[in-house]
Amino acid sequence: MHVADRLSKSIETNQSIACVGLDPRPHLIPPQLQSHSIDKHGNGIEAICDAFLSFNQGILDAVAGHCAAIKPQVACYEAYGWRGMQVLEASIAYAKKLSIPVIVDGKRNDIGSTATHYQQAWLGDIPIFNDEQHEGVGADWLTVNGYLGSDGINPFLDDENEHGIFVLVKTSNPSSGELQSQESGETSVMEAMAKLVNQWGSERLGNCGLSDVGAVVGATYPEEAKTLRQHMPHAIFLVPGYGAQGGSAAEALAGIRTDGQGVLVNASRSINGAWQTQNDAANWTDAAHQAILSMNDDLNNHR
Amino acid sequence: MHVADRLSKSIETNQSIACVGLDPRPHLIPPQLQSHSIDKHGNGIEAICDAFLSFNQGILDAVAGHCAAIKPQVACYEAYGWRGMQVLEASIAYAKKLSIPVIVDGKRNDIGSTATHYQQAWLGDIPIFNDEQHEGVGADWLTVNGYLGSDGINPFLDDENEHGIFVLVKTSNPSSGELQSQESGETSVMEAMAKLVNQWGSERLGNCGLSDVGAVVGATYPEEAKTLRQHMPHAIFLVPGYGAQGGSAAEALAGIRTDGQGVLVNASRSINGAWQTQNDAANWTDAAHQAILSMNDDLNNHR
Repeated sequence: MHVADRLSKSIETNQSIACVGLDPRPHLIPPQLQSHSIDKHGNGIEAICDAFLSFNQGILDAVAGHCAAIKPQVACYEAYGWRGMQVLEASIAYAKKLSIPVIVDGKRNDIGSTATHYQQAWLGDIPIFNDEQHEGVGADWLTVNGYLGSDGINPFLDDENEHGIFVLVKTSNPSSGELQSQESGETSVMEAMAKLVNQWGSERLGNCGLSDVGAVVGATYPEEAKTLRQHMPHAIFLVPGYGAQGGSAAEALAGIRTDGQGVLVNASRSINGAWQTQNDAANWTDAAHQAILSMNDDLNNHR
Repeated sequence: MHVADRLSKSIETNQSIACVGLDPRPHLIPPQLQSHSIDKHGNGIEAICDAFLSFNQGILDAVAGHCAAIKPQVACYEAYGWRGMQVLEASIAYAKKLSIPVIVDGKRNDIGSTATHYQQAWLGDIPIFNDEQHEGVGADWLTVNGYLGSDGINPFLDDENEHGIFVLVKTSNPSSGELQSQESGETSVMEAMAKLVNQWGSERLGNCGLSDVGAVVGATYPEEAKTLRQHMPHAIFLVPGYGAQGGSAAEALAGIRTDGQGVLVNASRSINGAWQTQNDAANWTDAAHQAILSMNDDLNNHR
């Protein structure tokens, strides 16, 4: 099935346009999980990785059936070397068992055969000796950086549209304008990127009318989101910056299509760290569960 | 010591401005290494990873003392999941034992605390529980994509200038102009990026007069390299696209400073696959050794 149709189905089934960031960091791990892992492994990378996996499984159980997708941030795992990548792979496998679509947030970018290796890593099959193939991680989407142009995008697009990408267009951070808002010809760099995204994806639509080439458009720039929607009518907007980063539901939904489709709103800290906000480490999974329900209410009220 | 001074010292000691790409791929592995690893592990990811590590150690032994740096392309390892990352970490450790500066080619990019995790992974120390730190991989440089602006760059810059970054400015691929050559105000996107690179790095110089913020500038665009040098007088240019990708020594050195400093030229396939060009699998390390010597001659003749 077209990856955009799978995502649309998940949105409909779960009545949620929320994407849950799966971004474990040491200070987000409840103390009892920390102690348990340190008791088992001593205080080192093994303990962190053991605790991260338990944490992720708890978060995934808490949000399954109530979110459209999950989005692990690769940096949180890559920091811990190969053991961290083991945790990421195991977490993705766990999410797949729960039938949650997975967006790997790697912002990967390279050209030709090197870009193909990133595609193989996250979305495809991996070549081994004697021209055989090995099954890869099998995520649904990967975030990519389009600075290198088509040579860096085409290797990620598969003929069956079974996997998709989100291309960085307008990021949520304060300094995003340093390059992205530079005037470029009659428009801006982000608009030039948006036009490329449309060019790459406008003929790769699922039955839902959305493409397997989406765009990252931060919740913190709602006016830009409206302009960018005009350049990318068929792109799903993956919207970071909601909640902890300051964007409201109305701002996060600024780029939504008139048919109410085409936006996926990410939240990480407000779900992963909900137990801290509620000061209730003992019930950290309940806190995450309540947080995703609140997020859905907030978003669905503004949709 | 300032990371640019360490690199300058390596260039001087080894009389080489060559950077050797450490990019193992199944078809580049000599058949006897393939058979040996398949015999040990069966034909799967374990065999690939076993062969990759043997291959890398052979290449590193062959080029040690004759290159300025090595540059592993992360995608080649990431394709093979956590086992691939184990090989990358072991290869970097092996290069460090041989005192070869290491440039991790990851083209990483993100913002704030997430960018910090990439910095920790490759250049810094990693936070574990109880506010303790664990030693990281310890590479010297990391390639990064600057599309997100200062928020995505500052986390990589350390107060002691002991680690550096190369920011993508003009990449070597044919479609690089789709965004990078767009007119941006009175210049182009790549020039806007070059000005940012200069802003980030121009006050972070080593005794050699070069910065810990360098730039990736492809050998395939020599005219652009000359223009970009004017915008970035203190940046080391990491130059891909020499050799197999089509750039000549003269083209690769187009952005060199008038003092003969500031360029590092990368070659991957022509070194890693030298045994194929010479059709001599039995002597694959000798072939790599001869290839680096030829590359040095070619570059030093044009310097």
